[in-house]
Amino acid sequence: MSNTALSNHSDTIVALATPQGVGAIGVIRLSGPHAIAICSSVFPSKDLHKVLSHTVHVGAIHAEDRVLDEVVVTLFKGPRSFTKEDVIEISCHGSSFIIKEILQLLLRKGARHAKPGEFTLRAFLNGRFDLAQAEAVADLIASDTQASHQVALQQMRGGFSEEIRQLREQLIAFASLVELELDFSEEDVEFADRTQLRTLIHEIKRVIGRLIESFSLGNVIKNGVPTVIVGKPNAGKSTLLNTLLNEEKAIVSDIAGTTRDFIEDELIVEGITFRFIDTAGLREATDSIEAMGVKRTREKMTQASLIIYLFDVNSTSEKELIRDLEELKGLAATYLVVGNKIDAKEEVILNKFKNFDGILYISAKHNKGIEELKERLLETIQFDKLKQNDTLVSNLRHYESLCETNKALKAVLKGMDENITGDLLAQDIRRALFHLGEITGEINTEDLLDSIFSKFCIGK
Amino acid sequence: MSNTALSNHSDTIVALATPQGVGAIGVIRLSGPHAIAICSSVFPSKDLHKVLSHTVHVGAIHAEDRVLDEVVVTLFKGPRSFTKEDVIEISCHGSSFIIKEILQLLLRKGARHAKPGEFTLRAFLNGRFDLAQAEAVADLIASDTQASHQVALQQMRGGFSEEIRQLREQLIAFASLVELELDFSEEDVEFADRTQLRTLIHEIKRVIGRLIESFSLGNVIKNGVPTVIVGKPNAGKSTLLNTLLNEEKAIVSDIAGTTRDFIEDELIVEGITFRFIDTAGLREATDSIEAMGVKRTREKMTQASLIIYLFDVNSTSEKELIRDLEELKGLAATYLVVGNKIDAKEEVILNKFKNFDGILYISAKHNKGIEELKERLLETIQFDKLKQNDTLVSNLRHYESLCETNKALKAVLKGMDENITGDLLAQDIRRALFHLGEITGEINTEDLLDSIFSKFCIGK
Repeated sequence: MSNTALSNHSDTIVALATPQGVGAIGVIRLSGPHAIAICSSVFPSKDLHKVLSHTVHVGAIHAEDRVLDEVVVTLFKGPRSFTKEDVIEISCHGSSFIIKEILQLLLRKGARHAKPGEFTLRAFLNGRFDLAQAEAVADLIASDTQASHQVALQQMRGGFSEEIRQLREQLIAFASLVELELDFSEEDVEFADRTQLRTLIHEIKRVIGRLIESFSLGNVIKNGVPTVIVGKPNAGKSTLLNTLLNEEKAIVSDIAGTTRDFIEDELIVEGITFRFIDTAGLREATDSIEAMGVKRTREKMTQASLIIYLFDVNSTSEKELIRDLEELKGLAATYLVVGNKIDAKEEVILNKFKNFDGILYISAKHNKGIEELKERLLETIQFDKLKQNDTLVSNLRHYESLCETNKALKAVLKGMDENITGDLLAQDIRRALFHLGEITGEINTEDLLDSIFSKFCIGK
Repeated sequence: MSNTALSNHSDTIVALATPQGVGAIGVIRLSGPHAIAICSSVFPSKDLHKVLSHTVHVGAIHAEDRVLDEVVVTLFKGPRSFTKEDVIEISCHGSSFIIKEILQLLLRKGARHAKPGEFTLRAFLNGRFDLAQAEAVADLIASDTQASHQVALQQMRGGFSEEIRQLREQLIAFASLVELELDFSEEDVEFADRTQLRTLIHEIKRVIGRLIESFSLGNVIKNGVPTVIVGKPNAGKSTLLNTLLNEEKAIVSDIAGTTRDFIEDELIVEGITFRFIDTAGLREATDSIEAMGVKRTREKMTQASLIIYLFDVNSTSEKELIRDLEELKGLAATYLVVGNKIDAKEEVILNKFKNFDGILYISAKHNKGIEELKERLLETIQFDKLKQNDTLVSNLRHYESLCETNKALKAVLKGMDENITGDLLAQDIRRALFHLGEITGEINTEDLLDSIFSKFCIGK
C-alpha cells in the first residue's frame, strides 16, 4: 500500500456516531491505541483496562470539575472491533449540549476529531474488509429503497470481492511466470502455459463482462431511472404525474424519519426510483410544455432512460400516432406508449387503435390503469432480473475499473494472437491487474482513498 | 399507586432511541418481558437467552426473506437495566430505510411501538428512580447551557428527592399516631408528641422554604431571563442588541449540532440565557419603538424580569434622566441603567452625570463596556448563588406542589395553636403529605403521569 500517511494510526480518533439533533441517546465513538486510557481518565466508575471485550458498563463521565452525564460505556478490544483497534462507545443522554461537552473533554484528554469516514478507512487499512466493501457501508447508510439497500448490503457482505480477488491471484501467478520468462529470454522458454493463460483470461472476461452488464441495473437501483413524460398539450401529462406522485406521497410520509424535499419528482415502485425530469414545467401549468418535436422536449428525451409518451385517445388520429411513434423509435431510450382519457366509449377507442401493439390505455384523471402503468415501468428496467443473491455493480468507480480491466485483457489476448514479446505481454497483464486491484483496494493511493472516504459522514 | 393501566407491563415496547436522520449508526431499543425472545427471533447469530447481561454481540438481523443489516446487539437483563425490565439495544447502520425496516420487523414479531417517554415511565413505575428524577431526564436532554445542564443532572442524580422522602416518612409516622388517637378519642390520649410534631413541621417548612426560594433562580436557569431594552428613540437600542447578539452568534454557531433558529433573540452569558422580549421591533427598524412612558413599552416591561434602560449620554439631560429613573423605580423588575455613546468627551459626560450612582457607560457601536454589561446582567440574577452541589427547583410542577405543601403545613401549625380536633389536624397533615408525595411521585395519577411523560420524546 502506498498510503503511508494514512496508515499512521498512532492517534485515537473520536466522533459522534449518531445523527445530530435531540434524541433519547447519542453515541460517541473512540478508536485507537489510547481509546481505553482516554475513556478511563473520565470514567472512574470501572477500571476499563481490566474488563472483558464486548461488555457494557454504567457510570458517570467526570470532567475536571463536575459530572457531565451518566452514561453506558461499551468496550470492543482490538482486533475484535469495527476498526480492529480498541474501540469505545459512550452512550450518553441525547442533548447537543452534553454531546459537545463530552466530545470536548475527550479532545482535551488526547483524542483527535475523526475525519469523515475515518473509522471505516481504518477498518479498511487494518484489513477488516476490502475497499468495495468499505464503499458499500456508505451506500448502505444512504440507501432509501429496498432494492438499493439490498445491493449495498450484498456488496458490504462480500459481493463480488472474493470472486475478483481469486481471479486476480491466478492472474498474478501467470504474470510472474511471464516475467520469469524475461529473465531467460535468450533461451526461448515458456513457463506460462499460453493455453491455460487464454482460458483464465476468458474466464476473467466472462466474470467481468457479467459485472459490467449488471451496472445498468445496479446504477438504476442506486440512482433511479431518469424518466420523462412527453405528449401534446392537453394529453394530460401533469394529471398523470400528479396521479402517480400523489399516491406515492401518502406512502412516503408514513415512513418515520424520511423528510425528503425532493420527493415531489420521484416515484418509487417496488423499491425502484423513477426520477421525473423537468416536471416543474409539467406541474406549474397544464401543458405548458410544447408538443413533441420541439427542440426543448427533444433535449429532455435524450437525458431520459425512459420515455412515457402520452396521447389523448379522443383527440389523436391514427395518422398522428403513427407519425409520433416513428419519431419515438428514432430515439435510443426505452419508451412506453400510453393512451389517456379512456373515460367513455372504451370499445370505440380500442377499435380506433387496433392496429397498434402494446399501447397501455389509462385514465389519469380517474386513476384507471395506473397500476398497470407502474408494472410496465418496472418491466422496462427488467427488475425481475434482480435476485436475492445477485451481485450487482452499482458504483461508477468499480464500473470504470472493470471496463479498464476488460480493455487490458483484450490487449493481452490480442498480443498473444500476434505473438508479441513477453515484456509487452507482461505489461498488459500488469495493467489488467492494476485496474482489478483498484476495485477491492489492493491497489490504492492516498488520493483515491481521500476521494472515497471524504464523502462519508463523520462518525462512520 | 393508582395507575393500574400504566403499570401493565406485560408487553414489550420498541422505539428508535437516537435522533432521526442520517448518521453512522442508529440505536433501536426494546424493553419488556419478551425483549430477548423477540430479538432472538431475528438475530440467529447467537442464543441471547444464554449470554450474560451487559454483553454485546455482533451479527445480522434477518427478516423473513432476507438479511436487513449487520448490527451490534447489547443485552441488559432486568433488573440491571434502565427500565428494570429486560432491555435490548440494536445498534444498526444509520439509514432511515434500515431503521424503519428493523422497527417494522420487530413490530411483526410482537413488540409494540413505545409511547413518548414510555421507557422512562417504566423505569419510574419499576422503582428505578422517583418522579422528580424521571422529569429531570427530559430536562437533561433539553438542556442547552451549562447551568441548565447542571440543575437537571443534579435533580436526576437524586437532588432534593431523598431529603423530601425522609421528611415525608417522618411526617407519615406522625400522621399515623394522630389518626390512632382518633380511635381512642373518648380517652383523650395523645400518642403524637405535639412538641416533636411542631419541630418536625418547622424543619420541613425550612427545607421547603429553601426549595421554594430556589425556584426563582432554578426557573431562570431553565427558562432564561425575560429581558427588555427600553429607552428613547436614538438611544441605540437596536445597535446594543445587535452588538450583544452578534458576538454570541459567532460562539453558538461553533457548537456542533445546535441549529437553533430562535437564537436571534437570546444571549447566553456563562450558561444563563437572557431572552430579549419583542426584539423584532427593535431589530427591524432602528428606534421604531416609542419612548418610555408609552403604553406598549410599559406592557413589555411588566413581562420582563430584567429591564435595560438605555440613554444617549450626549442628548439626555440630567432632568430627563431623573424623571425616567423615577418611573423605572415604580416598576417591580430589576433594572440596569446604561449610558450609551460615550465615544468622545468621556470626562465631560462622567461629570455631567456625577450625581447618579451605578450607571454603566458603554458604546454599543464601538463595542466598549459590553463585557461589563454582561457581568452586570449576571449579577442581577445572583448567579453566584449557584454552587456545584446546590439543589435548585426548576420545575413549575414541583414549585406548585411545594407551595401547596407549605400552605397545608401552615394550617397544621395554626390548627395546633388553636387546639383543633385530631381529625381536622390529621386532615391537614394528610394534605401536606399528598402534595409532598406528588413531587417525588409517591402520589400520582394516570393523568399526572400522562401529562409528564407525553412531553418526552419517543425512545426515551
